[in-house]
Amino acid sequence: MATGKINVSVDNIFPLIKKFLYSDHEIFLRELISNATDATLKLKHLTSIGEASVEYGNPIIEVKVDKEGKKIHIIDQGLGMTEDEVKKYINEVAFSGAEEFLDKYKDSAKDSGIIGHFGLGFYSAFMVASKVEIITKSFKDEPAVHWSCDGSPNFDLEPSDKTDRGTEIVLHVADDSTEFLEDNRISELLSKYNKFMPVPIKFGTRTETLPKPEGAKEEDEAPTEEVDNIINNPTPAWTKQPADLETKDYQEFYRELYPMQFEEPLFHIHLNVDYPFHLTGILYFPRLTNDLNSQKDKIQLYQNQVYVTDNVEGIVPEFLMMLRGVVDSPDIPLNVSRSYLQSDGAVKKISSYITRKVADKLSSLFKDNREDFEAKWNDIKIVIEYGMLSEDKFFEKADKFALYPTVDGKFFTFDELQEKLKANQTDKDGKLVILYASDKEAQHSYIETAKDKGYEVLLLDSPIISHLMQKLETSKENISFTRVDSDHIENLIKKDEAQISKLSDEEKETLKKVLEETIANKSYTIQLEAMDSAASPFIITEPEFMRRMKEMQQTGGGGMFGMGNMPEMYNLTVNTNSELVSEILTTKTAKKKERLINQSLDLARLSKGLLKGEELTNFIKRSYEMVK
Amino acid sequence: MATGKINVSVDNIFPLIKKFLYSDHEIFLRELISNATDATLKLKHLTSIGEASVEYGNPIIEVKVDKEGKKIHIIDQGLGMTEDEVKKYINEVAFSGAEEFLDKYKDSAKDSGIIGHFGLGFYSAFMVASKVEIITKSFKDEPAVHWSCDGSPNFDLEPSDKTDRGTEIVLHVADDSTEFLEDNRISELLSKYNKFMPVPIKFGTRTETLPKPEGAKEEDEAPTEEVDNIINNPTPAWTKQPADLETKDYQEFYRELYPMQFEEPLFHIHLNVDYPFHLTGILYFPRLTNDLNSQKDKIQLYQNQVYVTDNVEGIVPEFLMMLRGVVDSPDIPLNVSRSYLQSDGAVKKISSYITRKVADKLSSLFKDNREDFEAKWNDIKIVIEYGMLSEDKFFEKADKFALYPTVDGKFFTFDELQEKLKANQTDKDGKLVILYASDKEAQHSYIETAKDKGYEVLLLDSPIISHLMQKLETSKENISFTRVDSDHIENLIKKDEAQISKLSDEEKETLKKVLEETIANKSYTIQLEAMDSAASPFIITEPEFMRRMKEMQQTGGGGMFGMGNMPEMYNLTVNTNSELVSEILTTKTAKKKERLINQSLDLARLSKGLLKGEELTNFIKRSYEMVK
Repeated sequence: MATGKINVSVDNIFPLIKKFLYSDHEIFLRELISNATDATLKLKHLTSIGEASVEYGNPIIEVKVDKEGKKIHIIDQGLGMTEDEVKKYINEVAFSGAEEFLDKYKDSAKDSGIIGHFGLGFYSAFMVASKVEIITKSFKDEPAVHWSCDGSPNFDLEPSDKTDRGTEIVLHVADDSTEFLEDNRISELLSKYNKFMPVPIKFGTRTETLPKPEGAKEEDEAPTEEVDNIINNPTPAWTKQPADLETKDYQEFYRELYPMQFEEPLFHIHLNVDYPFHLTGILYFPRLTNDLNSQKDKIQLYQNQVYVTDNVEGIVPEFLMMLRGVVDSPDIPLNVSRSYLQSDGAVKKISSYITRKVADKLSSLFKDNREDFEAKWNDIKIVIEYGMLSEDKFFEKADKFALYPTVDGKFFTFDELQEKLKANQTDKDGKLVILYASDKEAQHSYIETAKDKGYEVLLLDSPIISHLMQKLETSKENISFTRVDSDHIENLIKKDEAQISKLSDEEKETLKKVLEETIANKSYTIQLEAMDSAASPFIITEPEFMRRMKEMQQTGGGGMFGMGNMPEMYNLTVNTNSELVSEILTTKTAKKKERLINQSLDLARLSKGLLKGEELTNFIKRSYEMVK
Repeated sequence: MATGKINVSVDNIFPLIKKFLYSDHEIFLRELISNATDATLKLKHLTSIGEASVEYGNPIIEVKVDKEGKKIHIIDQGLGMTEDEVKKYINEVAFSGAEEFLDKYKDSAKDSGIIGHFGLGFYSAFMVASKVEIITKSFKDEPAVHWSCDGSPNFDLEPSDKTDRGTEIVLHVADDSTEFLEDNRISELLSKYNKFMPVPIKFGTRTETLPKPEGAKEEDEAPTEEVDNIINNPTPAWTKQPADLETKDYQEFYRELYPMQFEEPLFHIHLNVDYPFHLTGILYFPRLTNDLNSQKDKIQLYQNQVYVTDNVEGIVPEFLMMLRGVVDSPDIPLNVSRSYLQSDGAVKKISSYITRKVADKLSSLFKDNREDFEAKWNDIKIVIEYGMLSEDKFFEKADKFALYPTVDGKFFTFDELQEKLKANQTDKDGKLVILYASDKEAQHSYIETAKDKGYEVLLLDSPIISHLMQKLETSKENISFTRVDSDHIENLIKKDEAQISKLSDEEKETLKKVLEETIANKSYTIQLEAMDSAASPFIITEPEFMRRMKEMQQTGGGGMFGMGNMPEMYNLTVNTNSELVSEILTTKTAKKKERLINQSLDLARLSKGLLKGEELTNFIKRSYEMVK
């Protein structure tokens, strides 16, 4: 048996890096600026603990594009490297560099958070450059060096005359990567990845207007000055303490994150936890519409202020993906599969921490200013309802502050609703019937009829509301949701009050026969009912159960399989106590009888929104005749 | 000046692989099966050119999961490796292995397509395994060897007693990767990545029922047998020649690709090109709905029958992303950014080749069987209209076969439409006015009025149709699209035919004053018009320009900025020749005048779908009174 050491063939490490290291070439700039940032923060740390006796000052990182020379420069004022360090960290394919530093300064370094998951990425430069130079001078009293490499494993190393501390990386951009010589492209990358990095980053200059000197004339132009164009905000709001921030600071940060977003967020949630994981961030509730999908992917994930991705699937719970803002955590593993993420213990804890924080924030908003919470309800309900459906822990908390608005603009919690309705809306079997409408306009006549009876009618119009009703009906006792147009008023909430019919049984039979003969349409089931004489003569209703199952099928499953495609079935209730119905019965001429029935049916269909197309056109023509 | 060689520190290559090589750990299986496939196909190639004097036979690749032993085995019957080859290709981090083989057998190997972008991925095994073994016997007459490595750079190499040709890889699955010891998970991966790989892959066995032996009794059970469970189809339809396939073969392959899809595709397009790039594939047109986004990401990208991704953005033109099927090309660079893809010359050529093939196929479908093409039009129009809007080359071709259906189910090409309409629908300025409706039901009365005048009315109801009309109006000469409810019938197509008004100018002035006083609603602009006396007394219309600009704003921009939120503005045309309007003028009592005006206005609003909620409820109540 033989043993040996696997030998990595260096001739082939560069193609490997180019092809496999990262799927996206544009991240070379993020990697190099991360390195520059690390070098700067490491120096800060060393000076703070007395291990570097230099002036830290106010270092910046500069990015310069030399389009003509096809070069990009990244210049920092950080640690720098001695010749020995270049040999060690660069020539040895420095994947161990960061780890070694970490070992040495373990505790203090970890606390100051200066070791991220990045910093290993110097070689990503070769994804876009045919040649890379490093010109570097250490903060230690040693001569500067100049390293260069053209992508083969051979490098040159020579003395440099650089006198100021820090490192300059020069990329000679390859022919297939000239897109990165465009100022616009670099601006775009800086804005995407580096907007909130902790060391100021300069890219070009901009002209600033100075105040006119005293005694200047009206027509004199104001003097101007070229100033550094700093592209980042090194201390974004989420890195600060909530106590140090006011509402307007959060709003300003929202505009920094989403410059094209003109609407203010409704409120924010500041995340800040140190144990058992590190996580900071700010989540915002925007005004939400019913289109669930188009609003996803607005939350940005950072690691130590470096942008990673806007895909937070698995980290932020599904129902909160419609929020906006920033989550920053060094404890989220990168470059792993979604299924791995979802089974990772730390990530699970992060996800349930976020859920709890959101529930607590909503609860305190509700308690502290109910009026404001009610005013915002329509804009946030979709998240809360979705959360109640998908996370049981959230349901428990949200059940105390979730609101049920009425068509008249009142808002009840579920407990308040039960209290308010129990006297008038409990049916003869002791079940509390909660009436609702999904559309105030389309169901207007049904809403009015229910309100005339003294009933409260809720306005429930979220796309997933039928699923939530189903959940409430099974998790609460003895309640049921019923839409106002699902039955005629006497049946909506069944009580022990029999209406006396003006018609005899014989007359009813005659009437029913006439109706069934005239109304040949099979989708209407005709029922005769003795109702208030002032109620409509004809009423069309659609039973709750069938309709709800269909709706659940259409909004993401549940309900019963195959019911999404069932044809609509309606009940036609004929009020035997209505004067018009008596007239139908007593009218002698068949033609008039038919006209009365058809016009009444058309009016009932109009009320339920079922009269359309040619039938509506004909109805209107007939009606013009009747107006005259 | 010093020069030197960059030295890759082997101690750190494994963490690098684990962290950075691939973003998704699950692809280890794809990589290892790709290697096994390459080894098998290389042997086939060598036997075919006489460089290997062994029986090729019918080799398969077997995958076995040993859940208890926490191991996964991948066994092939390919080339195998000698001890020297293991030392060279495995111990030297064999990123150059494939290249060397390619160099040696360059031309013939390239032609047989056996070198893919994969095969470099053996080390991806360490993403999920704490220890990896290779047991391999070369097709050459040399002893078998057994290599093992626990993820440190130290390996063991010893003789093995393996007697049959080929390589077995044994993965000792790491504790953080036990998900891959589940049969279901492995099945899922095999089905995702390996479903169409060119060597049969066995995963377990299944029981097959055999025919009963002759003379068996009724009650005897049929004999069964355990057979290899082959999970892939090594010769999927797209690898064959179109001439060898029938429609039913394409339909069967569609079901292989989308087993959960019950509807048949409408038609297919077989892609097959060798120069200037290699590309094969089959695209299917499914039945499409108006929801553009939910239907994307169904096209699968392969490289030499290995699944790569279902994100074909940049490769397939945007407007064809709603199609389904497979694209297989070794010429598409992987692991590069989208912006790089879009600027890559080869990829651009692929994209325009696909566009051209689709246009040609549609054109021949139209020419060969117009009736069938018309029947499918509603299901495919969205792709064609989107393509006409976004690609000028596609517009040129599609302009010959794009169809314009009428409300009566006739279909015209644009040229036919112009020919058909020019006599009756050219206005007094010589402009051809194309009338259309967007909803047969909602615009029924307007459609009927136009048809009574002998006009053709198109039914144009795609979500992006307003953008296409805008494009047609600017790219064709002297035409304009006008919706049937955008003006009253006399104005839709203005001709030199003056209608005589029954009312004098003085009467008209009186009438207008009364109308304006009664109808206080500011969103109606009242116009008196002398029309056919049989036409409706009141007609509400919505001018084309404003409405279309609003629609364009709402469907993805264009139009005029800010117009998406403008309030709706309507014209109320009052037909001065209508009997009812005369009655309004002559009626003496103010109350009756008001009732006539309001009822007429309500009927006009009903016809335009504007009477809703409380106003509709009141209208219905009034109408019930009138029925009696």
